[in-house]
Amino acid sequence: MDWKELIGFIGGFFTTVSMIPQVWRLYKLKSAYEISLAFSALLALGIVFWLIYGIVLGLPSVIIWNSITLVLVSSLLYAKLKYGRQ
Amino acid sequence: MDWKELIGFIGGFFTTVSMIPQVWRLYKLKSAYEISLAFSALLALGIVFWLIYGIVLGLPSVIIWNSITLVLVSSLLYAKLKYGRQ
Repeated sequence: MDWKELIGFIGGFFTTVSMIPQVWRLYKLKSAYEISLAFSALLALGIVFWLIYGIVLGLPSVIIWNSITLVLVSSLLYAKLKYGRQ
Repeated sequence: MDWKELIGFIGGFFTTVSMIPQVWRLYKLKSAYEISLAFSALLALGIVFWLIYGIVLGLPSVIIWNSITLVLVSSLLYAKLKYGRQ
């Protein structure tokens, strides 16, 4: 991995890992009232496009991290649908 | 813009725009208790790296959207610091 790809790898590490405490917090609180449904849904949709972008351009950092982020954002969306009105 | 770059452009549009209703919601509710501080801070840090990645690789979609997202995530972090404990 060259230094340019390393920067993307670090960026992806932080943006992906950032989702973990957020998803964890919602499930711990069993509440997602403050989370915007539009945020959760649009973010999930956007990550799908970024993942395709990474695949067609062959960008390893974009592919790896967006794959993991998609799982985490799906969990966020599920938390919003489950706990959003409480 | 070729079709590959268009996919990234669409991805960036959705992930960036997703932040608007989330930030809006926190300022409207004047509450950010459910938002994780680690989420806000790590996301901001990650976006900075993605922005640098876009600049060094000359990826227009990555540069444009991450610049806007950085402003929005900074607003999210500020909302967390201001309303997080209420």
